[in-house]
Amino acid sequence: MEQGRVQGRERSYRKASQRRAEILSRAIELFAERGVGASLRAIGDAIGVTHAALRYYFASRDELLVEVYRRHERLEHEAPEPDAVSAIAVIERSAERNRSIPGLVELYATLTTDALHGTEHPLTRQFVQDRFRQLRAQLAERIRSGQRSGTIAADIDPDDAAALVIAASDGLQLQWLLDPDTVDVRRALTLLERLLPSAPPPGAGEH
Amino acid sequence: MEQGRVQGRERSYRKASQRRAEILSRAIELFAERGVGASLRAIGDAIGVTHAALRYYFASRDELLVEVYRRHERLEHEAPEPDAVSAIAVIERSAERNRSIPGLVELYATLTTDALHGTEHPLTRQFVQDRFRQLRAQLAERIRSGQRSGTIAADIDPDDAAALVIAASDGLQLQWLLDPDTVDVRRALTLLERLLPSAPPPGAGEH
Repeated sequence: MEQGRVQGRERSYRKASQRRAEILSRAIELFAERGVGASLRAIGDAIGVTHAALRYYFASRDELLVEVYRRHERLEHEAPEPDAVSAIAVIERSAERNRSIPGLVELYATLTTDALHGTEHPLTRQFVQDRFRQLRAQLAERIRSGQRSGTIAADIDPDDAAALVIAASDGLQLQWLLDPDTVDVRRALTLLERLLPSAPPPGAGEH
Repeated sequence: MEQGRVQGRERSYRKASQRRAEILSRAIELFAERGVGASLRAIGDAIGVTHAALRYYFASRDELLVEVYRRHERLEHEAPEPDAVSAIAVIERSAERNRSIPGLVELYATLTTDALHGTEHPLTRQFVQDRFRQLRAQLAERIRSGQRSGTIAADIDPDDAAALVIAASDGLQLQWLLDPDTVDVRRALTLLERLLPSAPPPGAGEH
């Protein structure tokens, strides 16, 4: 009896968890195609889930948006970049992938702006704050490794440089979304290679 | 008679324009202190103006937000930076001024995110698009001038570099708002001086 109840509970937990994952995938597709919906209700309408069902799986619009972004990032990072890849290259590749999914760049911009209004969006603020901290730490480590191998000038502060690289990439993607024919994210990011080279300078005297 | 009517109309126009300016100043103070209010009604409540009066002067929340930012920028740019000031210095000073008014940085982030949802915010989109275009053109010109005087490498694309400098400043201010004790906007922006020096390198042999 007791065991049957536990199995039943596990089954229903698995089912709920599958359903939640299903809703998330549909929301990712929706955001990628059409951008971020205004309300939880509008999102539900668009992906064919009742508002009540959506509320059962996600307590708020914030929770859904954060989970969509988190899931997208997890899928993206299934193959992590090798340690030898430079900070600029990591950020360039991520920006390159985002080119094909402008809706998710929009979602990212929405999350960061919501995060600024922290009292109304405490969950989003925590997520965005943690994400920036982790990303800065990760890129600073790649910059330190470049300094150890002599490709990056030793007097550059790795934390400042990490914040700068992330900022440049975020800001350029935003300008690109507003002016896709004028702003070239990759080309502008490549300028940062002069500041944080990913390989030692070619030997002098070569031509 | 006719002249009297015209004078009356002019008087009432002047009065309306004064009242509008007054509302804008109060909204600037409100945003600087407490960030961007959620709705036109909430903004009206906070600055002690009825919703009806606010609607008389500003057709929408978007129009009010854009006008607040525009007015803030006009006040800021009353003394324009001399031509000789470098692109980085211009953006550093602007970021420095913004440190004291985080509410306005928040307003700026709100405007740019709204601009991405262009179908819902056509006015904001146009404003933000124009602002980025003007700012890129202005900074690109300063970079070209640095190239003519030999301080900036000739093979740097001035438009890419202008977009990069703006992006870095925008993104850093956002990270700073979320982590004021960790992120130092000015110090990180100064790294870009290595890429786009504001003065010729000191003569060789000096120590």
